[in-house]
Amino acid sequence: MNEPTHRIGFVQFTPVLGALDFNIERLLDLVRLRVEPADLLVLPEMALTGYAFRDKEELGRITTAENTRKTLDTAARLSDLFGGAAIVVGYPEPAGDGAFYNSCMLVGPDGLLGNYRKTHLFGAEKDLFLPGDTGFAVFSVRDLTVGMMICFDWFFPESARTLALRGAEIIAHPTNLVMPYCQRAMFTRALENSVYTITANRCGTEMHQKELRFTGESVIYGPRGNILASAPKTEDHVAVIDIDIHRARNKNLNARNHIYDDRVPDLYDL
Amino acid sequence: MNEPTHRIGFVQFTPVLGALDFNIERLLDLVRLRVEPADLLVLPEMALTGYAFRDKEELGRITTAENTRKTLDTAARLSDLFGGAAIVVGYPEPAGDGAFYNSCMLVGPDGLLGNYRKTHLFGAEKDLFLPGDTGFAVFSVRDLTVGMMICFDWFFPESARTLALRGAEIIAHPTNLVMPYCQRAMFTRALENSVYTITANRCGTEMHQKELRFTGESVIYGPRGNILASAPKTEDHVAVIDIDIHRARNKNLNARNHIYDDRVPDLYDL
Repeated sequence: MNEPTHRIGFVQFTPVLGALDFNIERLLDLVRLRVEPADLLVLPEMALTGYAFRDKEELGRITTAENTRKTLDTAARLSDLFGGAAIVVGYPEPAGDGAFYNSCMLVGPDGLLGNYRKTHLFGAEKDLFLPGDTGFAVFSVRDLTVGMMICFDWFFPESARTLALRGAEIIAHPTNLVMPYCQRAMFTRALENSVYTITANRCGTEMHQKELRFTGESVIYGPRGNILASAPKTEDHVAVIDIDIHRARNKNLNARNHIYDDRVPDLYDL
Repeated sequence: MNEPTHRIGFVQFTPVLGALDFNIERLLDLVRLRVEPADLLVLPEMALTGYAFRDKEELGRITTAENTRKTLDTAARLSDLFGGAAIVVGYPEPAGDGAFYNSCMLVGPDGLLGNYRKTHLFGAEKDLFLPGDTGFAVFSVRDLTVGMMICFDWFFPESARTLALRGAEIIAHPTNLVMPYCQRAMFTRALENSVYTITANRCGTEMHQKELRFTGESVIYGPRGNILASAPKTEDHVAVIDIDIHRARNKNLNARNHIYDDRVPDLYDL
């Protein structure tokens, strides 16, 4: 690495379903001894509420205006703790009329910087959430350009590709992974787009029809697919690492190949 | 696996640059003791000519009409040996006026079934070849639908995606790999498209400005990213395996997620 330019990280964290206040306490306990200045810190999907809502009624009881405010306040507090870092945290977003999005918010020291609504819903999420309508927007965090996608979005190469082509240098990726594929496949997402990826996963189990076992192993990849940080399978974990953002800004794979300019959209049918 | 429906494979083979007749002899020697009925067999990029042509003049001396005919004849002979299997083999294709494509032909027992011209040229190939103009067409091989892409095409998710969306159930992928990434990333290409992928690589070294070291490790992935066959780093190798093509035809990742129908093209910007 050349001189590091930024610091990015994740919190792997296991919430208890529906116990927002309890989860916030435990999250703050977890990070308190490991705080350090950072630019961007990513938390899991549904990081403070848990995931396996039985139905829309249960989801609605948890998705109150007060709880959304508490999520925002917790993110702002984390931002303070981590030297003004931007925080990405997954949460259930009320859409009005008893409808909800599976969303993540991007929060800076002065409050909300951006919001993303999950595009590709997984499994039983289709019974609970509306498909996201925000699309894959990018946001400025200090001098960084950050994109967000949530969990199953990773499966579709179009998600990370769209973010990267719109300028994302870092993809913040809150997850609640239950399939065994993603942590390995993010190698390809980072490499093919020459970006940093931060997959922040959770551990533990929840019941929804059957047991959901979340797979931990949160991981940060560099623009050449190198693993820069990873977490255990079953323990909560905080990681903050140095990166050189110029590595993501350089889209020259070698002297003759530029990974965006070499694309031939006329021959693609997508 | 349910009952196998088809047999697919690769030949990992190391040609000597420019020595077409010698390479054909050695190739036939290599496969002779391992022939078995198959449906599709993939050979490397530039499998019979070698790769590191010094310049267009040298490339032109090798890319004669007679040598193209010998390549076709060799593929037809392999097809006979492997029970009428379709053969994919990389070769330099004359484009007229001293120009060339980096191509692969698809050859059945009755002759040429299809041709693909490499879309994404790698490094110094840009001095030797025209960018391919065929695009990512798919072809019928018995009751299979086969797509072709060559080497560096893998880097761009759009290549395999276009083939798969057009119906490819198997992606035939002749390569001359020198970077360390592809064999690992094809996990993602197979999984994200729910297809079989056959990456047929070569071994050995050639000189072009600097030494090119080809990385072997040809690999077949199944539709869930499982490795079904792989070859050593430095030795030639023949592999033919059973597959159940229904696994690639089923695009349901689970009861609620269909990997094509779940796409949201309106939110992609590609």
